[in-house]
Amino acid sequence: MKAAIIGGTGYTGSELLRLSVGHPELEVVVVTSRQAAGQGVAEWFPHLRGFVDLEFSASLPDALTDLDVVFFATPHGTAMHQVRPLLDAGVRVIDLSADFRLRNAAVFERWYGEPHAAPALLDEAVYGLPEVAARDLRDARLVACPGCYPTAVQLALLPLAESGWLGDQAIIADCKSGVSGAGRSATIPMLLAEATENVKAYSVGGHRHSAEIVQETSRHAGRATDVIFTPHLMPMARGIHATVYAQLTADAEDVQALFEQRYAATPFVDVLPAGSHPETRSVRGTNLCRLAVHRTSGQRVTVLSVIDNLVKGASGQAIQAMNLMFGLDEALGLDRPAAVP
Amino acid sequence: MKAAIIGGTGYTGSELLRLSVGHPELEVVVVTSRQAAGQGVAEWFPHLRGFVDLEFSASLPDALTDLDVVFFATPHGTAMHQVRPLLDAGVRVIDLSADFRLRNAAVFERWYGEPHAAPALLDEAVYGLPEVAARDLRDARLVACPGCYPTAVQLALLPLAESGWLGDQAIIADCKSGVSGAGRSATIPMLLAEATENVKAYSVGGHRHSAEIVQETSRHAGRATDVIFTPHLMPMARGIHATVYAQLTADAEDVQALFEQRYAATPFVDVLPAGSHPETRSVRGTNLCRLAVHRTSGQRVTVLSVIDNLVKGASGQAIQAMNLMFGLDEALGLDRPAAVP
Amino acid sequence: MKAAIIGGTGYTGSELLRLSVGHPELEVVVVTSRQAAGQGVAEWFPHLRGFVDLEFSASLPDALTDLDVVFFATPHGTAMHQVRPLLDAGVRVIDLSADFRLRNAAVFERWYGEPHAAPALLDEAVYGLPEVAARDLRDARLVACPGCYPTAVQLALLPLAESGWLGDQAIIADCKSGVSGAGRSATIPMLLAEATENVKAYSVGGHRHSAEIVQETSRHAGRATDVIFTPHLMPMARGIHATVYAQLTADAEDVQALFEQRYAATPFVDVLPAGSHPETRSVRGTNLCRLAVHRTSGQRVTVLSVIDNLVKGASGQAIQAMNLMFGLDEALGLDRPAAVP
Amino acid sequence: MKAAIIGGTGYTGSELLRLSVGHPELEVVVVTSRQAAGQGVAEWFPHLRGFVDLEFSASLPDALTDLDVVFFATPHGTAMHQVRPLLDAGVRVIDLSADFRLRNAAVFERWYGEPHAAPALLDEAVYGLPEVAARDLRDARLVACPGCYPTAVQLALLPLAESGWLGDQAIIADCKSGVSGAGRSATIPMLLAEATENVKAYSVGGHRHSAEIVQETSRHAGRATDVIFTPHLMPMARGIHATVYAQLTADAEDVQALFEQRYAATPFVDVLPAGSHPETRSVRGTNLCRLAVHRTSGQRVTVLSVIDNLVKGASGQAIQAMNLMFGLDEALGLDRPAAVP
Repeated sequence: MKAAIIGGTGYTGSELLRLSVGHPELEVVVVTSRQAAGQGVAEWFPHLRGFVDLEFSASLPDALTDLDVVFFATPHGTAMHQVRPLLDAGVRVIDLSADFRLRNAAVFERWYGEPHAAPALLDEAVYGLPEVAARDLRDARLVACPGCYPTAVQLALLPLAESGWLGDQAIIADCKSGVSGAGRSATIPMLLAEATENVKAYSVGGHRHSAEIVQETSRHAGRATDVIFTPHLMPMARGIHATVYAQLTADAEDVQALFEQRYAATPFVDVLPAGSHPETRSVRGTNLCRLAVHRTSGQRVTVLSVIDNLVKGASGQAIQAMNLMFGLDEALGLDRPAAVP
Repeated sequence: MKAAIIGGTGYTGSELLRLSVGHPELEVVVVTSRQAAGQGVAEWFPHLRGFVDLEFSASLPDALTDLDVVFFATPHGTAMHQVRPLLDAGVRVIDLSADFRLRNAAVFERWYGEPHAAPALLDEAVYGLPEVAARDLRDARLVACPGCYPTAVQLALLPLAESGWLGDQAIIADCKSGVSGAGRSATIPMLLAEATENVKAYSVGGHRHSAEIVQETSRHAGRATDVIFTPHLMPMARGIHATVYAQLTADAEDVQALFEQRYAATPFVDVLPAGSHPETRSVRGTNLCRLAVHRTSGQRVTVLSVIDNLVKGASGQAIQAMNLMFGLDEALGLDRPAAVP
Repeated sequence: MKAAIIGGTGYTGSELLRLSVGHPELEVVVVTSRQAAGQGVAEWFPHLRGFVDLEFSASLPDALTDLDVVFFATPHGTAMHQVRPLLDAGVRVIDLSADFRLRNAAVFERWYGEPHAAPALLDEAVYGLPEVAARDLRDARLVACPGCYPTAVQLALLPLAESGWLGDQAIIADCKSGVSGAGRSATIPMLLAEATENVKAYSVGGHRHSAEIVQETSRHAGRATDVIFTPHLMPMARGIHATVYAQLTADAEDVQALFEQRYAATPFVDVLPAGSHPETRSVRGTNLCRLAVHRTSGQRVTVLSVIDNLVKGASGQAIQAMNLMFGLDEALGLDRPAAVP
Repeated sequence: MKAAIIGGTGYTGSELLRLSVGHPELEVVVVTSRQAAGQGVAEWFPHLRGFVDLEFSASLPDALTDLDVVFFATPHGTAMHQVRPLLDAGVRVIDLSADFRLRNAAVFERWYGEPHAAPALLDEAVYGLPEVAARDLRDARLVACPGCYPTAVQLALLPLAESGWLGDQAIIADCKSGVSGAGRSATIPMLLAEATENVKAYSVGGHRHSAEIVQETSRHAGRATDVIFTPHLMPMARGIHATVYAQLTADAEDVQALFEQRYAATPFVDVLPAGSHPETRSVRGTNLCRLAVHRTSGQRVTVLSVIDNLVKGASGQAIQAMNLMFGLDEALGLDRPAAVP
C-alpha cells in the first residue's frame, strides 16, 4: 500500500515513518510539511537517517490515484477541511487528530472553539479503536483515531461497560502522561528544565479528552456514564498510565476473568495476572496496552492501564486500523517488544 | 537545643543534618550509625562537606542528659525498642518512622508483621501533624511524625473532614511519589535504569500508609471514613503529588473559602488561587504543602496537594514539630524557597 | 542595599530573587520585564510565592538614587546600551551577560555579531571572578560576571596557570552542562521529550565561551594559551562538570598541594582529597565549586570541576561579587548546602 | 541457529533475548540463571511477556550438540572457566564479558585481579569488532565481544590509526555513559535518587577499559599509542557519547573523506556530514554507531561517537558477530530504527 502523511514534522508523523520501516506492506511515498518542504526527513529526524530517504513536500501530488491511504498527523482543525476531495478520489483517510472523534458537531464546537467544517462526514467516520471497531474498519473510508488518554481509559473500562457491571458512582480516571503528549512544539512548560523532577496536574475539570472518554464509555455501557478525568504531566518523554477507579454493581462477579475473556482474541491488549502492576516502559515504542485489575474493597475495582501515547495512543493504532481496513494481519509491522531499560 | 539523630545514613537522616545547618537553635551533636561508625558525615554525604563536621557514632553517649531531643531516622521496628530509656532520662523523642503512628497495637501488628514493643506508649505519643496537633506538641515527650503520603493526603482532606462536608462515597487518594520515598537502600527496581522513563503503581490495595490515612481522616471527620489509596512511582527523586477525589455533602458551600480559612494561620500550607495546579518542584527542599481545590462536577471536588516527601513528609515536619515542642517560632530554620529549576 | 534586576523572567533573574530571600543585606526593590510588566513575580515563579512579593515593572524608576546596585539578567546586547546612565547616577552595575567579559571590542564583535555599544567601558569593567579579582571588586563600578563554562574551567586551571606549570600541549576542556544553561526560552531541542535520555555535543570548535576562556587563562598564565573547549548537553536541569586535561611542565611538583594552597582562603572553592570525583549535585543550588585533581600518566593532569551553572556560574557569583563590592562578608547569604538527593 | 544464553538476568542477557525476537535465523532455546532457575523470563522482564516464552534453566542441557552457539552474558571471570568443553563439543562461543578481550594473560591479571583460567585460548579468541575483524569472524570458534566504551572509542579512532595520521600527543577519550553500563545489580550510587540530576566522572586514570582501548588502538596504529580515557556517568539509562581528541600528523589531509571511505561498506557505522553533532538517542536500541569529525584548530581533530552501550556496545554487536560467523547477512535482525523521542 502506498501512503501519504500530512504534517510529518511532529511526533505522530515521525512515529508513522518509524513504524513504516518495519511494515512489509506499507510504503510511505509522500510526507508533507509546509515548514520543512524541500528538506530531508533525516535532517529533521536524525534517528531515521539511513531508514527513510524522503524529502518533505509542500503538498500532496495532483495524482491522488496512486495513493491508497492518507494519514493526517496534523493538529486539530486541519483534516476536516481537507478530507473531502481525498475521499472523492477514492483515497481512504486515517485522521490522527481530534476532528472526527466526537459524533456531535455542537460538542466539537464547544470543546474546540470553532464550528466543524465537515459535519456531514461525522456520521460516516469510524471511531477507530480496533478492539471495538474491527468489523467497521474493514469498509471504513474515514477513520478517526482515538486520543491517547481515551485509548488508555477506554481499554480499562470496556469489559466493565459492556458487561453492565459498572455501578452508579462516578468513575475516576486519574491519568499520568509523558510530555510527548503535548506534541513537538516549543513551549516553556515543556522544557526539560521546567518539566524534569516535577509532577503536576493540568486542565483539571476541563480537558478536551473528557468529552471523548464520556462519549465512548457511555456508548459501550449503553447509558450515560460520568467519568472524572484528570491528566497529569510526568517527567518523562513517553507513556501513559491510567489509574481507573470504578464502583461495581452488586451482581458483578470475577472481574479478572471478565477482562481475560474480553481481550483473549485481541493481539494488543495484554491482561496481566491478578495482583500485577504494569509499567509504562514495558510497552514503550510498542502498540501494546497492558492492564491489571485490582478488586480493592467491597464493590470497588481499580484498573491499571499502560500504553505508549505515541504508538497505541496514536501512530501504532493508526497502522493497526489500516491493517484491518486493508484486510491485512492486524498486527503486521507492530511485532517488536520494547527496548528496556 | 542539642540533638541526636539515630540512624543517620538514610535520606531522612541526611535531611535532618542539612536542615540543621540553617537552623539557628538546633545543634546536632551526635549522629549514629552502626554501619558508618567512625566515618565522617561528609564521606557519606559529599554535599554536606564543609557544613557538617561530625563523625558517625556507633551509639548514643552514656550521658543522655546533655541532649534535649533525639530524632529516630530509622526504619520501622527500631524506635519502639529504644525510646523508653530516653524518655526516662528526660530526653524528648521525635520518631520519623512508623512505630508510633498507629493508635492501636493490633493494627500495627497486622500491617507491620510484628507485635508492638511498647504498646503502653501508644497513648502518650502525639501524632505530629502540626496543622492539627500544634497545641499537643508543646508538652509532648514522644512525637510520631506522619508518613509522607499521609501528610499530603490529610492536608488535602482536613478542611472537608472537619467541616462535615465529606459525602458518603469512597474517597480516592491517587498519589505520585519520587523514588526517594523508598529510602536509601539498594534495590533493583529503584535503579535509575529501571525507574527512569517509567511510571507504575505499586501495592495497590495494600500499602501500609492506608491504615494511617484512614485512622487520621476518620479522626478528623469524627466518623469512619473510607479512603482508597493508590501509590505510584514517578521517575524523579523527590516530591509527592496527591490527587484526592471526594464527594461533597449537599450542604457543602464554598470549598475554596473553606480551605483558605482553615489554613490562614498555618505557615506551611499554601492554598493557591482557584483554578491553580501546584507543581511538586515548587516545594522541593522546603517544608511547604501547596494545595489547589477544584470543584469539578456537581458535588464533587478534586484537591491537588504537593509536598517534598523528605521535608514536609519527613525531616522538615520533624523540625517543625520540634520548634513547637520547644516554644520556638514554628517556621524557624525552614524559611528558604525551593531552588527551581 | 537596595537592588534592581533588569530582565527578571529568565533563570538568572529568578535565581537572583531566590538568593535575595536568604541574604540579610540585600533587598530587591525593582525587577523589570517588558513582557511581564504588571504581573506578580509569583505568577511567573510559583516557587517564590510567599517569599517575593514584587510585581514586574516595565522599566527602572526615574529616581535611580535610591538604588545601590543594578543587576543585568538580560541576554547579551542589552546591558552595553543601558549601563552608562546608571554609572553616571552613581549606581553600581553587575552584568550577568556577556557584554563586558571580553576585553577587546573587535573580539566581541567577531563572536557576538554586532559592534560593541560601549567600548570605552571595557577597560573599566572588572571581570568578576572573585577568586582572582577580590581586590579589584572593592572599588568596581561595573562588573562583568564570568560565564558559566568559563567559571568552571578557569577555576580548574587557575593554580596551574599562575604557577607556570602548564605545558605546551593544547589544553582540553570537555564540559557537560544541564539544559538550564540555554536559558528559559522555548526551543524544540530543549524540550524534555527531546533532551531526556540523550547526550550530545554542540558548537564544537565555535562556542562563544571559548574566547572568554582563552582570554582569561592566557591572562592568568601570562602567555598565550590554547584551550580546546567542547560543550555537551546533559539530560538534567542544572550543573556543569568540566573535565580539564592539561600537560604539565617538567618541573611541576605536587599539584594536589598547589590546588589546596591556592584555594585555602577562598570560601567557595573546595579542593577535594586526592582520588575524589566531585558530583554536580553536591553543589546544586549553591555557590560552591568542588575540584578534584588527578595526576594521570607522566606529566599529565586531569582536573574535575563542578559548579551549579545558575549559581556559581551566574547569580550566586554575582552576589558574591556584590558582597565584595560593598565590603560585606564574601559568603553572606550564600551559606546553605545543596538539597540532595 | 539454536542458541543458549548463559546468565540471562542482566541487561546484556535481556537484550540478546529482545533482539532474538526480531531475528529470523536465531532461536534462543536455553537461557540459564542459577538465581532465576524455574522462573519465566517474563516474570523477570515484563517487556518480553508475549514475546519470549522461556523459563530460566539452572544450567546448559547435557546434549550440547543441539546448540550452534552459546552467548556468555555473565560478569567477567565466568566464561574463561566454562568455554573449553563447549568448544570441544563443537559449539561456537561468543563471550560478552571481558575474559578474552586482552591478548596477554598478565595484563588480564593486573586489571582483573585474578589469574586467567584459560590462557591457551587467548591466542585463538577473535576480538570481535566486526568493522575490523569481519574476515576472522567467519571461522572463529571463540569470539570476545569488545567492551562498550572501547567500541565507541575505537570506531572514532580507527581510520586515523590505520592511516598513520595520528600525531604523538596523548589522545583524550572523554566518555559519557548511561547507568545501564554498570549492569543490573543493586548498588546505592546507581539508584535513581542518587544518579538523576547528576554528572560525575569515575575511575579516573584506572578504568579497566583503558587496557583494552590502548591494546586495540595500538594494534590498529601499528605502534604504541597513549590514550587517556575518562568515563563519566550520565543521568540516563542507555547510551555512550565518546568525545575523542587527537593530534594529527603534519601530512594529514581530509579527515572527513578518510572516515567516509573507511566506513563506506560497513552497515552499522554512519559518518555524519561535516559539522554534525550526533545524539545518543538517535542510536538507542539499535546497533548503529554514528560519528562526526571536527577539524578544530590547526592539526587537531575532535571525533564525536555515539552508540547504545547495550546494543552496539554489547548484545547487538554479539549478534552482528554471530551473523558473520555463520555466513548470514551482517545486518540480519538488526534493521530497525530507534524509537525517538
